[in-house]
Amino acid sequence: MINAYAASEPKGELKPFSYDPGPLGEHEVEIDVEYCGICHSDLSMINNEWGMSQYPLVPGHEVAGRIAATGSHVAHLKKGDWVGLGWHSGYCQTCESCSTGDQNLCSTAEGTIVGRHGGFADKVRADATSVVALPEGIHPATAGPLFCGGITVFNPLVQYGVKPTDKVAVIGIGGLGHIALKFLNAWGCEVTAFSSSESKADEVREMGAHHVINSRDPKAIEAAAGRFDLILSTVNVKLDWNLYISTLRPKGRLHFVGATLEPLDIGVFGLIMAQRSISGSPVGSPATIAKMLEFAAQHGIEPIVETFPMSKVNEALAHLESGKARYRIVLKRE
Amino acid sequence: MINAYAASEPKGELKPFSYDPGPLGEHEVEIDVEYCGICHSDLSMINNEWGMSQYPLVPGHEVAGRIAATGSHVAHLKKGDWVGLGWHSGYCQTCESCSTGDQNLCSTAEGTIVGRHGGFADKVRADATSVVALPEGIHPATAGPLFCGGITVFNPLVQYGVKPTDKVAVIGIGGLGHIALKFLNAWGCEVTAFSSSESKADEVREMGAHHVINSRDPKAIEAAAGRFDLILSTVNVKLDWNLYISTLRPKGRLHFVGATLEPLDIGVFGLIMAQRSISGSPVGSPATIAKMLEFAAQHGIEPIVETFPMSKVNEALAHLESGKARYRIVLKRE
Repeated sequence: MINAYAASEPKGELKPFSYDPGPLGEHEVEIDVEYCGICHSDLSMINNEWGMSQYPLVPGHEVAGRIAATGSHVAHLKKGDWVGLGWHSGYCQTCESCSTGDQNLCSTAEGTIVGRHGGFADKVRADATSVVALPEGIHPATAGPLFCGGITVFNPLVQYGVKPTDKVAVIGIGGLGHIALKFLNAWGCEVTAFSSSESKADEVREMGAHHVINSRDPKAIEAAAGRFDLILSTVNVKLDWNLYISTLRPKGRLHFVGATLEPLDIGVFGLIMAQRSISGSPVGSPATIAKMLEFAAQHGIEPIVETFPMSKVNEALAHLESGKARYRIVLKRE
Repeated sequence: MINAYAASEPKGELKPFSYDPGPLGEHEVEIDVEYCGICHSDLSMINNEWGMSQYPLVPGHEVAGRIAATGSHVAHLKKGDWVGLGWHSGYCQTCESCSTGDQNLCSTAEGTIVGRHGGFADKVRADATSVVALPEGIHPATAGPLFCGGITVFNPLVQYGVKPTDKVAVIGIGGLGHIALKFLNAWGCEVTAFSSSESKADEVREMGAHHVINSRDPKAIEAAAGRFDLILSTVNVKLDWNLYISTLRPKGRLHFVGATLEPLDIGVFGLIMAQRSISGSPVGSPATIAKMLEFAAQHGIEPIVETFPMSKVNEALAHLESGKARYRIVLKRE
């Protein structure tokens, strides 16, 4: 039996919930969860905001733990290995995306908490291909958030060939944004944070931002016209996107990793005249996750976390919802 | 004196207009206009739709002609050479865009008909750097439209490294779209035309489209879900862009070369889930224009034109405005 915390209905409180996962699949692993980060999408799934939640729903897709058991066909992981598990818990492995290394774009990839039970539990299972070993130098207590929040902001740097000579800005300095600042600083870029919170400014500089622009001050944003090669938006609210587009250099890109629900209202001229792009991406592939972990270890990058015991999961979720988390919450199994 | 046709006010009829261009600059050339294409942006400029028109306004920025005179510092062109001139008639040559080969993105590039007099005339002048020689095999009578319409659809193929294995669609089969079909077919791509005009379907296939989808039939568009690596939109009207985005493959791009005035109304999820991009671009650099001309000569590609004598310029403009041009109008100097 696996002992977890589950919501039994949309917006429901999480309560203890046990389930029998059945026999371990040949290609699966079972992970003893030691830590599990809380991502905003756990809240979205608990609340069925995307219409794809199934109840009872066990959230949790930023797992750090140790391999408890491996299926008979699993060769690259063994009992006791420290590993992580993120948004995806399996891929078809045969579509064009999978076969070209873009498993994260597989249209039938399994979500760790979509029709499956996630990591707010003592154990979690996943297809072994989606589980990545933690390299030396990555601390399990802060590793979980790298597997969803971290990879989501790291992946675009790889996908679009961001160069150390690029000037990059991050909109929203929260769970994703603060890790983005750290990665970008280590990547060699000139890093700017767009933040609505003046009180964070000093911390934001410590995270790696060379410049901080108050995102509530349109004149300050205007003053950055034509400056950035890349802007990563981590927020899920509507902003004046055309104003941000005007801060892109020729061939610049405004890239969305925050799933803002309101449509973008984009003028075409601002794109055409300077050959600018708008794009979005989800998490990354297992190979990109492995690359991120090595880079994080190399540069001593770890998320800034607040740790709650897993039994206080409802308090932790309320803290996240209040917007006061600094900067990512991690549950620790007791 | 240069003898031209000019509008003296927004939406005004073009009338004969002569002006003294003064002494030829050291870096300028004077071109004897033989042919000049009519672009939709000539209409937009005559009507001051973009608020940057100055009157009297001599339209015309798809010039094919012969060098009449060269400034003292011009070395790469000589009297009698067949050349073309497009949207730009000069660049700063010192900004980052210019110095990295993206003169077309120079923010202070001069427009041939923006505060200058264009090619609806017996002669036109431009900075020599913006004038490109016609290679062997390019016919002056159809070359003009390559210098704006042609380069606008050719440039994205170079900018985004479109591969012959890509599946590419074109929205709108008019002045730009029909040239795009020809280039894409020669590029080796599987080519699809989105066209609202059933009556054009056979012609569209002759231009190089392997598939034609009726853009007035949402079900036919839906059936192409996940199919295209690139969609080039050449129209300036509002369409259901999210429907078109759904026809892009993972990592696909919806690229705008048509300057639609209404904002794009784009859902972020469709971008994030499949790492899709939206972008836009203007014309190309002189080097890309030269590359396009060689490619067109190599593959026997030329725009399909209707030719009017330059004295019938107002009839020609009315024909363009009626939407009946098949597919680009060229004025011939008498």
